[in-house]
Amino acid sequence: MKIDLLDTLREKNPIAFNISNFVTVQDVANGINALGASPIMSEEKNEAEAMVQMANSVTVNLGAFTEAQLNQIDTVTTFANQYDKPIVIDPVAVGAVSYRLERCNELLAQKKVAVIRGNAGEIAALAGVEWNAKGIDAGEGAGDLVDIAKKLAKKYQCTVVESGKTDIITNGDAVVKVFNESDLFKLHVGSGDMLSSTIGCFVGVEPDYFEAAQTATVIFDVAGEVVAKSMAKPLAGSFGPQLIDELHLIDTKTVEKYANFE
Amino acid sequence: MKIDLLDTLREKNPIAFNISNFVTVQDVANGINALGASPIMSEEKNEAEAMVQMANSVTVNLGAFTEAQLNQIDTVTTFANQYDKPIVIDPVAVGAVSYRLERCNELLAQKKVAVIRGNAGEIAALAGVEWNAKGIDAGEGAGDLVDIAKKLAKKYQCTVVESGKTDIITNGDAVVKVFNESDLFKLHVGSGDMLSSTIGCFVGVEPDYFEAAQTATVIFDVAGEVVAKSMAKPLAGSFGPQLIDELHLIDTKTVEKYANFE
Amino acid sequence: MKIDLLDTLREKNPIAFNISNFVTVQDVANGINALGASPIMSEEKNEAEAMVQMANSVTVNLGAFTEAQLNQIDTVTTFANQYDKPIVIDPVAVGAVSYRLERCNELLAQKKVAVIRGNAGEIAALAGVEWNAKGIDAGEGAGDLVDIAKKLAKKYQCTVVESGKTDIITNGDAVVKVFNESDLFKLHVGSGDMLSSTIGCFVGVEPDYFEAAQTATVIFDVAGEVVAKSMAKPLAGSFGPQLIDELHLIDTKTVEKYANFE
Repeated sequence: MKIDLLDTLREKNPIAFNISNFVTVQDVANGINALGASPIMSEEKNEAEAMVQMANSVTVNLGAFTEAQLNQIDTVTTFANQYDKPIVIDPVAVGAVSYRLERCNELLAQKKVAVIRGNAGEIAALAGVEWNAKGIDAGEGAGDLVDIAKKLAKKYQCTVVESGKTDIITNGDAVVKVFNESDLFKLHVGSGDMLSSTIGCFVGVEPDYFEAAQTATVIFDVAGEVVAKSMAKPLAGSFGPQLIDELHLIDTKTVEKYANFE
Repeated sequence: MKIDLLDTLREKNPIAFNISNFVTVQDVANGINALGASPIMSEEKNEAEAMVQMANSVTVNLGAFTEAQLNQIDTVTTFANQYDKPIVIDPVAVGAVSYRLERCNELLAQKKVAVIRGNAGEIAALAGVEWNAKGIDAGEGAGDLVDIAKKLAKKYQCTVVESGKTDIITNGDAVVKVFNESDLFKLHVGSGDMLSSTIGCFVGVEPDYFEAAQTATVIFDVAGEVVAKSMAKPLAGSFGPQLIDELHLIDTKTVEKYANFE
Repeated sequence: MKIDLLDTLREKNPIAFNISNFVTVQDVANGINALGASPIMSEEKNEAEAMVQMANSVTVNLGAFTEAQLNQIDTVTTFANQYDKPIVIDPVAVGAVSYRLERCNELLAQKKVAVIRGNAGEIAALAGVEWNAKGIDAGEGAGDLVDIAKKLAKKYQCTVVESGKTDIITNGDAVVKVFNESDLFKLHVGSGDMLSSTIGCFVGVEPDYFEAAQTATVIFDVAGEVVAKSMAKPLAGSFGPQLIDELHLIDTKTVEKYANFE
């Protein structure tokens, strides 16, 4: 685990291009900025090539898209592949809505992606495993979480981050489990989106995407855990700004002290 | 007043489909989630039917829409009527902008809605009563607030929640007034939208929409009052996250202790 | 410097129409509301004329636009000129993306604007001076910051606010420098957008736009500085809500006490 990628990130200050969903975009931008990268957002095809060229990575959140936005996602990811910029995909609710699953499957069939980050229901749906997802929530299923993540990683030869009580990161062979967690992540709507965009920041500075995804996940999970432990009561709303506080304040020493993974 | 609907809501965890305005969508999603329901948002017609089918209710905020979004609102509300899912309408600024009033009147003429939630200026405009609205604010008028709310409730055979210093809830005959309040609600732009989406959560678990609207309003108003009273100074910005904190922390005992209605 | 414009603003409660970017719109709306003006947002051409007529000023943020939105910006600014409502332009990232620069140059060539508010990279790009911008950040350049701002102000006969460590305000001849600052402004993604919309509030009550821009900048900068000084550590996330708190709490006495300009 390369925890010191955090210092690399802050030194290089990569540009993280995000196609974010409109629900959580402000938290995503502030999280990226607080961490030490530079967020840039755009919904316009005419600037897609320029944006991709200046960016170090592209994070695509499928949380809420119209047909026009799908079109833009197609354009942006095509340029990302062309200019060799790593793509992180967040397949929000593909486990619950077949239209989203179909569009996401099409995207993954056509483009080379670096990392897919989703909850169990979303990863299972993309891996083609039965699961009972519930809206934007993970839902419940019977399959083995590690097997499902590995299956998807192999299917697209990418890194998969399956988040939940334990976060599972795999390249299809090796598996890392991160145990740092907090119930507050689930209470805050943008948590998953912010984890995906944090991964987007790190794949922009570390060409080994499996390593980058691990570091990003541990840092993000530890930050959330530190915030949660500092609260006497679970503050579902204050968790948002305080998580952004901690993404700025956190250093490698804090991460090393609290990181709990295998 | 069925305060214990709060426990029912948390047990059933209904899916609250929201067509939210882009200004306040993040607060709305976090408020729903903190309270104990599951928010889902979408701007895409192709997934409208699936979204409505999985949802327990549909809340439509008319706060900022383009023609494309109006189209989607039409599709979503048609499906909601077809699948018998209750609709909550938040007619933002219909008192100030005639274009919005016309579109909202068309919508209400064509669809069966469960609840309309607006400020005095918005309710007056929909009821066809003269009023002097100011932008997104209520403005001032001479009519009797209860009469105006009743008139609108009768016109569309629905429940009306007219919010202001006192919140008035009526089904056209019976009237409940909720006196819990705080000036901070007006200082926080998303308060009205969050009240509407809170009502959306409760009509998803209680088929008597008049009851559901009362409970939702009392819980939301008490939550805001509790937050405001805990502040030494009126913190217009911190009120947002702290209101979301309280929507998660609040329980039936707290609501019963502070509820002030007749 | 007319600090007491703050009292005028709160007394007149102007309607500030904002075409805001989707990333920071919630903070912008809450900032305007907390300060004492009334925000209104719209993306719909059909209500553009009504919105402009009721508004006291129009602030156009070019932070993230699609072709459809550009179209709406064109419509809104045409009406603003027609009805003599002052326009504030925030040219986000025009220093980094040539597509944005071209669209902004077209807009400025066709419309009369009151104020342009941007960072050094954005102001340099519009002034036609070489600069090395980085994404949404200012980047670095060799030119004299005051000269660049003056050049742009003369080019369009408007007031220019060039924000950075020192904020420079000029009408092309006179120059005011505001030294109040905090690193937290850069850590919070919406700060620049909020400064622009604050200027939008003040040009709605003060016909001397150069004066209005100075007052807005000093008040906004002092508010941020007050918040930053109250923090033991730089809280990048909590700065957002607390800045909105302070925009509501701040009074002319506090501004006069801390204002640092020449």
